Amino acid sequence: MSELHWKTAITDVQPNRVSLRGYPIDKLMGEISFSQVIYLVLKGELPSPEKGKLIDAIFVSSVDHGASPPSVLAARTVASTGAELNSAIAAGVLAISRFHGGAIEEGMELFHEIAGRMEEKGISEREAAADALKEMKKKKKRASGFGHRIHTQDPRTKKLFSLAEELGLAGKYVRIARAVEEELVGLLGKSLPINVDGAIAALLCELDVPSEIGNAFFIIARVPGLVAHIHEEKTRMRPMRKIHPQDYEYDGPQEKEI
Amino acid sequence: MSELHWKTAITDVQPNRVSLRGYPIDKLMGEISFSQVIYLVLKGELPSPEKGKLIDAIFVSSVDHGASPPSVLAARTVASTGAELNSAIAAGVLAISRFHGGAIEEGMELFHEIAGRMEEKGISEREAAADALKEMKKKKKRASGFGHRIHTQDPRTKKLFSLAEELGLAGKYVRIARAVEEELVGLLGKSLPINVDGAIAALLCELDVPSEIGNAFFIIARVPGLVAHIHEEKTRMRPMRKIHPQDYEYDGPQEKEI
Amino acid sequence: MSELHWKTAITDVQPNRVSLRGYPIDKLMGEISFSQVIYLVLKGELPSPEKGKLIDAIFVSSVDHGASPPSVLAARTVASTGAELNSAIAAGVLAISRFHGGAIEEGMELFHEIAGRMEEKGISEREAAADALKEMKKKKKRASGFGHRIHTQDPRTKKLFSLAEELGLAGKYVRIARAVEEELVGLLGKSLPINVDGAIAALLCELDVPSEIGNAFFIIARVPGLVAHIHEEKTRMRPMRKIHPQDYEYDGPQEKEI
Amino acid sequence: MSELHWKTAITDVQPNRVSLRGYPIDKLMGEISFSQVIYLVLKGELPSPEKGKLIDAIFVSSVDHGASPPSVLAARTVASTGAELNSAIAAGVLAISRFHGGAIEEGMELFHEIAGRMEEKGISEREAAADALKEMKKKKKRASGFGHRIHTQDPRTKKLFSLAEELGLAGKYVRIARAVEEELVGLLGKSLPINVDGAIAALLCELDVPSEIGNAFFIIARVPGLVAHIHEEKTRMRPMRKIHPQDYEYDGPQEKEI
Repeated sequence: MSELHWKTAITDVQPNRVSLRGYPIDKLMGEISFSQVIYLVLKGELPSPEKGKLIDAIFVSSVDHGASPPSVLAARTVASTGAELNSAIAAGVLAISRFHGGAIEEGMELFHEIAGRMEEKGISEREAAADALKEMKKKKKRASGFGHRIHTQDPRTKKLFSLAEELGLAGKYVRIARAVEEELVGLLGKSLPINVDGAIAALLCELDVPSEIGNAFFIIARVPGLVAHIHEEKTRMRPMRKIHPQDYEYDGPQEKEI
Repeated sequence: MSELHWKTAITDVQPNRVSLRGYPIDKLMGEISFSQVIYLVLKGELPSPEKGKLIDAIFVSSVDHGASPPSVLAARTVASTGAELNSAIAAGVLAISRFHGGAIEEGMELFHEIAGRMEEKGISEREAAADALKEMKKKKKRASGFGHRIHTQDPRTKKLFSLAEELGLAGKYVRIARAVEEELVGLLGKSLPINVDGAIAALLCELDVPSEIGNAFFIIARVPGLVAHIHEEKTRMRPMRKIHPQDYEYDGPQEKEI
Repeated sequence: MSELHWKTAITDVQPNRVSLRGYPIDKLMGEISFSQVIYLVLKGELPSPEKGKLIDAIFVSSVDHGASPPSVLAARTVASTGAELNSAIAAGVLAISRFHGGAIEEGMELFHEIAGRMEEKGISEREAAADALKEMKKKKKRASGFGHRIHTQDPRTKKLFSLAEELGLAGKYVRIARAVEEELVGLLGKSLPINVDGAIAALLCELDVPSEIGNAFFIIARVPGLVAHIHEEKTRMRPMRKIHPQDYEYDGPQEKEI
Repeated sequence: MSELHWKTAITDVQPNRVSLRGYPIDKLMGEISFSQVIYLVLKGELPSPEKGKLIDAIFVSSVDHGASPPSVLAARTVASTGAELNSAIAAGVLAISRFHGGAIEEGMELFHEIAGRMEEKGISEREAAADALKEMKKKKKRASGFGHRIHTQDPRTKKLFSLAEELGLAGKYVRIARAVEEELVGLLGKSLPINVDGAIAALLCELDVPSEIGNAFFIIARVPGLVAHIHEEKTRMRPMRKIHPQDYEYDGPQEKEI
């Protein structure tokens, strides 16, 4: 045991035995889903079936959003130079930063701050949201997780919230997110609806996920989408093509039923 | 429409509508699991329930394997410098390369080659495996996906194969992987059992996944594990510590039942 | 010309003609050094011969500092997995972050702030430094660019400052850096000498480089060092070895004269 | 001394003393240029003044080539998301791969192979080049380092070769590169002139640089260019803009004299 000896509480690896947060991995395999094991590895405990279902929906909601997000463009650009798959994925992940995907962490911090104001001052969601937004306005900061370039009624937000209601997981933070949405109308004179990042932020608060790993949920969800784009770039396009950031069209299958 | 106009078949994004490989994303949410949507986005079709279950088990099997793999060490090293979460993940992904995770793609190629020999020459799994291994030996190449530094009977391999049998998904490629394992004993005079990469390689062949994205399954599975290590590094360790690559111990929860 | 048309002031590329910030590149080649062209491309103007010489010394000072910095360990870890050269470099660059290399940008901001106080209040370097440090102490912030784990009299700092004196380039910011060093003794009761990052920070302020690209000077300097380590790892070590972060020794050539 | 003890021959770091390949770093500072120290750290020896001058010209030649190379587009895309400087640089470096920058390593291997044929068979540059190209044609491989999308007479190639002649450093490998150029005319029925990558490949062969680090010279040269683009993107453009890969114009200074 050297002076550099250290400890970790994630995974115990012994000859012919691997345990994840205490659970033998071969007992988890076939029993719980990938989403549930992600929750386990990040939070240290297995989710309830309801939470497991909600996490699945969160990951499904963010797996891909077409070819124009900068993470996809960075990944395709690198893939186009003949780079290895993992290099192209890494480039895509590097683009999931403050203005792209970063709204989850910032949204969670806002919702926590509003919750803190409610408790401290004994005020309502609307009052606390109004206070927080006024203060942000003074500092010229914008609320993260509201408004979308393309969607006015994001189908993902709607589904995430209705599912959370059904599963009994929509509580204080969903109410806070809605209070912010309502207060923003008065403040800005126009509607800036909760976007998918804002909805995920509220739900991760409900699930008691630390805000510092909020963006990780987006990154984990989006890596498979990046892989699909990288593979399409490598197999369908010629190397070193100039990749137009918006002049493309979808030519995949027509709308199907599950 | 410019001269750079291009086409993609992955996701169709319209105002207030997002469709993944033809399926409206809000219809997928709450209905299918994250693993299943990964299969959908990569393969272009929904998996059967059996395939969905097997894919879940593949992802669960590879979510983490302790702190010593180079991807974890690279990610923790970068995290320790105060870098953002996504930078540390990217560094980890860059370490999932030829000798770490790369065995899946190489294993798939070997199994496909053996399948090709069987068909072409009308020979058995064992005969084709023997031929392929002899040729590799001449070129001083080693079979990827066999042998493990720590495990002699990897619990993950065993579970993956038993699950595939149960689900009716263990076919030609599982037989080929076993034939290689058996032939290796004779060739090397010692046992080099199928490791988890080799097992995943065989199963991805069964699922008709292109070998070029074989490693992507490992990367997708491991990103959540990297996030857990990065978060532990940032919250439990002091910045810029010297990270010993093997002198650490597990101090998480004792073995639990699900 | 599309709606996405944009402008750049760095390089003009025409058939058989390439101009860098207005200078034909083939006229620069053979006439000015790499360091000088780096200054040109970053600042938009050619440096004087004196400034050119100082920049050379800055880059030389930071090209390598042994195998223990996290950038080297991250790069070697990735190289050890069989990754491409550029992937290993990228991993190394990702480790040059807040606590490793980041002191240049933070040091520059501190020195600018002190210069601002001097001008605003008509006070001396020492007085302004004392004020700034007191305020930082209240916020529990530490002065970046002072103190070193190994060196008490860093030979690189000494040389950088003596060279700047000789070249007539040591002015207000070098005085400010020294004032901070002196004030720190009183404040902390021990000496925390200017380190190489702090010295570079002061000199980049003298050269009127924007602080936002201060760290870039370190990154540019260190990439060649990373390449040397990656190449040594790939040619001298076996793949996937466990890389101890400090138990190594130097076995290169004995001390030589130029 | 643990079982993981290892050795490195690059830099010796002792308290108050840093030696690079045997040379005290403070003796190098102010005496030799950044280019020369790069050569030292990579090759283990100081270059002659002539070699030092040629290396400077090589680095100057490749510092930037406008905004359309994929490394610049990847770096700008990541910068545009609000990412840190080092993340954007890393993304740019990941794009310097097989089809972008990779021609140097491949060119060096081709020239070495031709030199090997000459020696083995006692034939001329032209004969050996013709043989090598014929064999490549059979395997449907193209000669790396010849032809350019924009330049028919690349000013950088011309200058690199004339400088190498002047400095007495143009020998066998420059002759081989020219022989390949000449043979290509006959083989393809059109001229495919040596491009800047091909010229650098020939000169790095003359300097006895290992081909495995050939691309490193391009990466080292281009990182400052990437920094200039990242800084311009962050200071001149709005975040998350759509970056058109070719519809841009240069609006920097008019052509100047040195």
